[in-house]
Amino acid sequence: MNKFEHGGNIYAARDNGEAWLDFSANVNPLGLSSAVYQSVSLGIKDVVHYPDPKAAELKKAIEACYNVPSYELVLGNGASELFYLFLQTVRPRNVLLPVPSFSEYERAALAARAKVNCFQMDPDDNFRIDWDSFMGALAVADCIILGNPNNPTGSLITRNELVHLLDEMRGGHQWLVVDESFLDFLPYDSRYTVRDLVEEYPNLFVIQSLTKFYALPGLRLGFGVACPMLAKKLNAGKDVWNVNLLAQKAGVAALNDKEYQQHSRKFIAEERQRFFERINGRKGIRAYPPSVNFMLLDVRGTGLTSSEFTQRLREKGILVRDCANYLGLDGESYVRVAIRQSAENDRLIDALEEL
Amino acid sequence: MNKFEHGGNIYAARDNGEAWLDFSANVNPLGLSSAVYQSVSLGIKDVVHYPDPKAAELKKAIEACYNVPSYELVLGNGASELFYLFLQTVRPRNVLLPVPSFSEYERAALAARAKVNCFQMDPDDNFRIDWDSFMGALAVADCIILGNPNNPTGSLITRNELVHLLDEMRGGHQWLVVDESFLDFLPYDSRYTVRDLVEEYPNLFVIQSLTKFYALPGLRLGFGVACPMLAKKLNAGKDVWNVNLLAQKAGVAALNDKEYQQHSRKFIAEERQRFFERINGRKGIRAYPPSVNFMLLDVRGTGLTSSEFTQRLREKGILVRDCANYLGLDGESYVRVAIRQSAENDRLIDALEEL
Repeated sequence: MNKFEHGGNIYAARDNGEAWLDFSANVNPLGLSSAVYQSVSLGIKDVVHYPDPKAAELKKAIEACYNVPSYELVLGNGASELFYLFLQTVRPRNVLLPVPSFSEYERAALAARAKVNCFQMDPDDNFRIDWDSFMGALAVADCIILGNPNNPTGSLITRNELVHLLDEMRGGHQWLVVDESFLDFLPYDSRYTVRDLVEEYPNLFVIQSLTKFYALPGLRLGFGVACPMLAKKLNAGKDVWNVNLLAQKAGVAALNDKEYQQHSRKFIAEERQRFFERINGRKGIRAYPPSVNFMLLDVRGTGLTSSEFTQRLREKGILVRDCANYLGLDGESYVRVAIRQSAENDRLIDALEEL
Repeated sequence: MNKFEHGGNIYAARDNGEAWLDFSANVNPLGLSSAVYQSVSLGIKDVVHYPDPKAAELKKAIEACYNVPSYELVLGNGASELFYLFLQTVRPRNVLLPVPSFSEYERAALAARAKVNCFQMDPDDNFRIDWDSFMGALAVADCIILGNPNNPTGSLITRNELVHLLDEMRGGHQWLVVDESFLDFLPYDSRYTVRDLVEEYPNLFVIQSLTKFYALPGLRLGFGVACPMLAKKLNAGKDVWNVNLLAQKAGVAALNDKEYQQHSRKFIAEERQRFFERINGRKGIRAYPPSVNFMLLDVRGTGLTSSEFTQRLREKGILVRDCANYLGLDGESYVRVAIRQSAENDRLIDALEEL
């Protein structure tokens, strides 16, 4: 497995020509809202025009939905682009990453020629950050990147913990990037988000994806929140058309679809609990309690490596995310699965029974 | 006018609610081909998936159409992204720009913290590069960016001239970026393109847009051609999903639509000549002979500044590109217009008569 390979790659065709059942991409299982489908469909005729360079409608929708003023916004061609943009713009020398975490953090840091320092999180403590040791590791870094909730572990960091960290960092010339891409799946995010703190802490950059919760990763859409000075610098570092016209339209429709939002949050909250209870302990699998729409599994009790486990399911037309290439995991014991619709989750359980 | 503002911004609504007649964006006047429309339309249901990170189908289509091997390719979220990516990756200190030229060259160079040195092209020589003086200016730069044909002037550089330049540069640690984004509009490009020379000259990077010729700027699509080592480095500098799923599908459909390609080239070749002949000399306008789908106008003979000229047409619902913010133009005499459908071009002529 290539070091920076991801899940979600459905493009290798199945032998029998059928579609994959994809648990490897962490996308809202409810799929595209009909409002989004319609707005994209109506928008196709407009792709003969450039996207709105000001993205005025989209920014208005983000302002209203996330309570973030537009002068703090940096729009991204997906959240991933923003890691590259931030790191190329700020050019830190030493990036500190708690691991395991999303591999693009490391890849983007290396692309910006930074040195990457890892901080190991403890599997026996649900991969939570041990803040006492973490504070000790701070000194080496001029940039820290945290996922909240973290991918692939699902562990959450509270707003209080982050404020404490920011206060410790104050005065030092250190950047903190918080990736809140999955926070939308929580019924309430006020205990966790720090996107309202960028003016108080101008060394803070918060990244949000709009493709996971709204199930439109193919369109690419995300945004960053930064203090006005940093936002201006980041916006100057990319062309003004980076968010395509259909993604802008889809984003507006998605952010206005309150029913989809509520339904998704309610569904995920119920189904992740049910799926966790069904899968945990089955066939030697240890599941880490999911906080949002994905779940980390320790499969060593099955007697299979993660690679074998993944391969066996693949033969049944089911894709899961082999976590063998994650820094901070042992390379053979972990697999990540998305929370999908109930019947699909049950199909995965059935497939496990047959392994 | 903001320094880096572009044309093509149709998002300021007209007072009477009607659509703009937009001559300010240089896009194929034939619009979306029906094959592209259909492939995007069918693709919407798939945006719940990530784009193919390998973009295998799209790369295959580019290989076939441009005769470029896929290991030399760097796909872009529009051509513009590639200037930022290249400059952030290579990080030249001094960029040499013949001016006037596309303002994103300068903006991207500044974002990568390079110093920008301008080389003035002579309006009385159709803004062609005076190669003798240009060779003298080379020494200051470690990177040169050339548009071929150049935007907004339309001037072409022959392949022979570029090879001569590359030979002069050889041995120096200098990069040459050639932007061939409008070359597709020519019936034959073999006298001009250098995209087949990247292995012979590993300091050469060639950029091609697919949004102008195929009229899909709203979708964002372009590619770069580089020697394998540089291509690898550039690909490592961006996330693997930067070309969205619909743009990938549209690109494949567009590159396979030979009829649209031939029809477009034939139409532009005829119409640009007709439009040039109708507009040149009218009402004091001097037109520079267009090579592709746009034309630079010197409007000082009208007694109006470019800003007044643009404003007067705007009041009639017609957008043209005021070139006041181009480096290397005098800030008040130049306007750029796209070549559109014949009836639309005639509407512009009629509007000029009424000024």
